[in-house]
Amino acid sequence: MKTETRQKIIEAGARIIHHKGYHHTGIQEILKAAGVPKGSFYFYFENKEDFGLQVIDHFNGYYLALADECLQDTALPPLNRIDRFLGGFADLFESVDFTLGCPIGNLAQEMGDLSAAFRRKLQRSVRAMVDLYVRVLAEAQQKGDLADGIDIRETADFIVSSWHGALVRMKIEKGRQPLDSHRRFVMQTLLTG
Amino acid sequence: MKTETRQKIIEAGARIIHHKGYHHTGIQEILKAAGVPKGSFYFYFENKEDFGLQVIDHFNGYYLALADECLQDTALPPLNRIDRFLGGFADLFESVDFTLGCPIGNLAQEMGDLSAAFRRKLQRSVRAMVDLYVRVLAEAQQKGDLADGIDIRETADFIVSSWHGALVRMKIEKGRQPLDSHRRFVMQTLLTG
Repeated sequence: MKTETRQKIIEAGARIIHHKGYHHTGIQEILKAAGVPKGSFYFYFENKEDFGLQVIDHFNGYYLALADECLQDTALPPLNRIDRFLGGFADLFESVDFTLGCPIGNLAQEMGDLSAAFRRKLQRSVRAMVDLYVRVLAEAQQKGDLADGIDIRETADFIVSSWHGALVRMKIEKGRQPLDSHRRFVMQTLLTG
Repeated sequence: MKTETRQKIIEAGARIIHHKGYHHTGIQEILKAAGVPKGSFYFYFENKEDFGLQVIDHFNGYYLALADECLQDTALPPLNRIDRFLGGFADLFESVDFTLGCPIGNLAQEMGDLSAAFRRKLQRSVRAMVDLYVRVLAEAQQKGDLADGIDIRETADFIVSSWHGALVRMKIEKGRQPLDSHRRFVMQTLLTG
């Protein structure tokens, strides 16, 4: 029962923080959305920062599992997995009218300068996503699908960074173009030649 | 006198919003930093949103003038201007310990889903920056420094988007690597061949 209520609060908080950001989200608002009595927050969390850090773990669990499943799916050649992964996210964002963006990228931008605890956790999170790309790029290189001269660590970093930038642009343009364009540059410029 | 006070409020607000974001910045905090009496805010601005929109104009004035000066500096070949521009920003961010990021990118991420007025203004701002890159890339193409097959509008868009993404990563890594890496990809991968 305790775990269930805690989970409800985290899921409601994650939804609102993804939409509005960390600072603009109030604890009362989260409890109301979770259908949990006022005052129960501090029974489960030390303070808002502690809660925010657990929300990052929640996002990580979801995104890293999804990325791992998609990028390590041996039914497809390695580079096609990246293409499908990026295309799948473009479809996902289209289905929510190009809102939200990446919660990890959003929090990195909002909290990177303001909390060392957030920064460390977000750093680990982005690095873990980069590592998943490194694995699939290494596999592509081993199979001869990717030129030996390509620095796979730096390329993986740039795929993830430029993805976060494409999402920022998507949020103001409200269209697929930044995501499709990112995918095209990754597949046709970065990962060829 | 009126204009001077208004300008003081905008400059103080721009500094704080750049550091902490729009929602996390309070009006009293801005007035205090500006050394302006409490209560004078609504004499100059309709409301916080109106103020925020004027802060965007303030950022635009600064960044677009800087970009224009650097990217249209005919003393250097076009592609070298881009290289110098990106390197200059990496130095600038190093001088402030890899904090802040791009205020336009920050606000795009924070406000893109929350205010149509912010979204429109930020859209115009990013598009104006892209236009400056389009101009310099067109010049490079005319001179034969850039392959004819390169779509300069899409490339300019991607340079700006991936720059915003590099800044997000910088904010959690607190190092130059994302910026240097962005510059290297732009100069050695996107703008060659």
